Amino acid sequence: MALIVQKYGGSSVADPERIRNVARRVATTASGEGRGSGHQMVVVVSAMGKTTDGLVELAHRIAPSPEPREMDMLLATGEQVTIALLAMALHALGFKARSFTGPQVGMVTDRAHTKARITTIRGERVRRALDEGEIAVVAGFQGLSDEDEVTTLGRGGSDLTAVALAAALRADVCEIYTDVDGVYTADPNIVPDARKLARVAYDEMLEMASLGAKVLQARSVEFAKKYAVPIHVRSTFKPEGGTLVTTEERSMEAAVVTGITHDPSQAKISILRVPDRPGIAARVFGAVAERSIVVDMIVQNISRDGYTDISFTVPRGDHARAATALDEIAREVGALGIVHDERVAKVSIVGVGMRSHSGVAARMFATLSKEAINIQMISTSEIAVSCVIEDKYAELAVRALHDAFELAREPVRSA
Amino acid sequence: MALIVQKYGGSSVADPERIRNVARRVATTASGEGRGSGHQMVVVVSAMGKTTDGLVELAHRIAPSPEPREMDMLLATGEQVTIALLAMALHALGFKARSFTGPQVGMVTDRAHTKARITTIRGERVRRALDEGEIAVVAGFQGLSDEDEVTTLGRGGSDLTAVALAAALRADVCEIYTDVDGVYTADPNIVPDARKLARVAYDEMLEMASLGAKVLQARSVEFAKKYAVPIHVRSTFKPEGGTLVTTEERSMEAAVVTGITHDPSQAKISILRVPDRPGIAARVFGAVAERSIVVDMIVQNISRDGYTDISFTVPRGDHARAATALDEIAREVGALGIVHDERVAKVSIVGVGMRSHSGVAARMFATLSKEAINIQMISTSEIAVSCVIEDKYAELAVRALHDAFELAREPVRSA
Repeated sequence: MALIVQKYGGSSVADPERIRNVARRVATTASGEGRGSGHQMVVVVSAMGKTTDGLVELAHRIAPSPEPREMDMLLATGEQVTIALLAMALHALGFKARSFTGPQVGMVTDRAHTKARITTIRGERVRRALDEGEIAVVAGFQGLSDEDEVTTLGRGGSDLTAVALAAALRADVCEIYTDVDGVYTADPNIVPDARKLARVAYDEMLEMASLGAKVLQARSVEFAKKYAVPIHVRSTFKPEGGTLVTTEERSMEAAVVTGITHDPSQAKISILRVPDRPGIAARVFGAVAERSIVVDMIVQNISRDGYTDISFTVPRGDHARAATALDEIAREVGALGIVHDERVAKVSIVGVGMRSHSGVAARMFATLSKEAINIQMISTSEIAVSCVIEDKYAELAVRALHDAFELAREPVRSA
Repeated sequence: MALIVQKYGGSSVADPERIRNVARRVATTASGEGRGSGHQMVVVVSAMGKTTDGLVELAHRIAPSPEPREMDMLLATGEQVTIALLAMALHALGFKARSFTGPQVGMVTDRAHTKARITTIRGERVRRALDEGEIAVVAGFQGLSDEDEVTTLGRGGSDLTAVALAAALRADVCEIYTDVDGVYTADPNIVPDARKLARVAYDEMLEMASLGAKVLQARSVEFAKKYAVPIHVRSTFKPEGGTLVTTEERSMEAAVVTGITHDPSQAKISILRVPDRPGIAARVFGAVAERSIVVDMIVQNISRDGYTDISFTVPRGDHARAATALDEIAREVGALGIVHDERVAKVSIVGVGMRSHSGVAARMFATLSKEAINIQMISTSEIAVSCVIEDKYAELAVRALHDAFELAREPVRSA
């Protein structure tokens, strides 16, 4: 008998019919999926469909900038509705089940309302429920501060609740149910022969999460990595297995590159001929950060004659605001000026295997070159290489790289 | 500086506009209504409009008979939404406010889910908030069992929360805001010159609550009486004062009768020629109770020749089911049979003053007689006399009694 944590997102529990569907799915696992004995189960759920958006809108009809503490009090009701309904649906199927709010499961957080961080998990109540043969149905996204205030965990909070509970309870696996059925070697909408990965390493998933594959938030993957919680990403609507995100293992090294990711909606800004003095980069990026604009790639080359160029990418929607801010800074620091381009995309290759293989980056550049795609910026990490290119070539680049690294083919596993 | 508990029902907080309106009302009291210093305030609210009905319907779309524990988990979200929004609205007006769920205010109840009874109130958090100059906004209707489970208090639960908090905090007054502006000598829709009562005694209010005046539930009045909490019933939508429900005082005795109540939708059932043996009444009313039918008036006269008649009234909607049950019982106990009439109404006079005045009942009967209204059943308590009459005469009876006891006139207060 295993201990399994399952998490279902808002679209999986959007209405009573879907909640009953999730209940049947949970029941199947709890009773052993027809093979062998059943499992102990913890089920984490989000608010139904667009409930959270609706509550946020309601708050803004009351006050232009609601206090974060009261926002958490308000938003926490969304998941509480779902847990009660899912427990009812499980009872109706003849299963013992009990719902728990975030405070009730002892999900202790810091006091940073609307974006709290988990500090401790006191899982006694859930453990007791499991010992009594009950399915524990837990509200995702919410916790309790050391001052007994309701808190919420921010974006991706329900995934995090599931991973954290799986860690605290030493669950065998944390299954994250979404509307995609796993992690692919590339976006299947662009690369028809993209292959679903049976496993990826935490670090690869982290690169993929931050590089634009929207399956899991980096925050949950980091937590899972830290506590070695295996995450199984799979579809709510299909029975077959998805992708296991887990610790790196020898056989993974067979593939040099695991997947190709791309982010088609970036913009590039360069400040030209910046005096190469300490503190300049801080001023440049300070100005951007002040406007709450998230900077992705940053490239600065060596200086010549005491001047250098600094380039970086931002989400395309923030491009105009960032350019305005930078124009000012450029004048202040005595740079030549700025140039910007809002029609760029980032394409990356990711794989733990490239740590021990040389020539991977070179092969990427050669592939793009063969397609006559100009590389505008390059940035690398230990297990990824990213190139900024003109956005109209993004899909072509992904397909060419997918072919070049032979990702459609199952890699030969060395034992 | 007084400590004031205010309670606003669902229709008073039905939408963001009304919530902002309640916030303004609270703010006025908190800041002293323009005269003198401000007050410490606790505000108890219900779920917005028809929210609770909507949640119940949602539950029934999931399961035909949801578990009471999960029902409470679900329903408690309704008030939690309102407290967050009202706190936001108070902040927007520049006031310090903090919302509290039932569990957070330490509203401890027994374990009877969906109809829990309050056992203790640990008011420390609310007291601390008040000491810090905050307005405490509290979710009505909900509590926490000794097993840390969310419970709800059943019908009229939010009023009860307000009265109980007022008792625990030794508040100066508990103001219940409703859509009527107080307690009247009779239903103003029927008696145009009905007069709003400035004060009524707890016992009078109890009789009126159970006799059909729907302003306050008997349960809250009983609690208020036990802990001597003055209740001020007043309108959310009008500024002027309403009715103070409080301990009896000498000046109240000036009026013999305080008010006339009526319940126009009763049905009467009689079992004829019942053998007058011990246990018969228990069987009769046991059969009715088994069907969860609430019996109101019961009249049994002395027996003649070892037989008696038993009559009682039930809500008209339960009449058919009650009659069917009684038919069976009548045969079993060897009674002659049953007769029933679903077109009766109950008219009552209420007043603590009648304790010390004789002839009050006689005057009531004479008044009805003068209008040629036949009295079918009579029942009395220490401070009320009730008559069952044909329902088409109900309004006439109320008007005639209102005149006969001169209720339109302010009673002369003896000091």
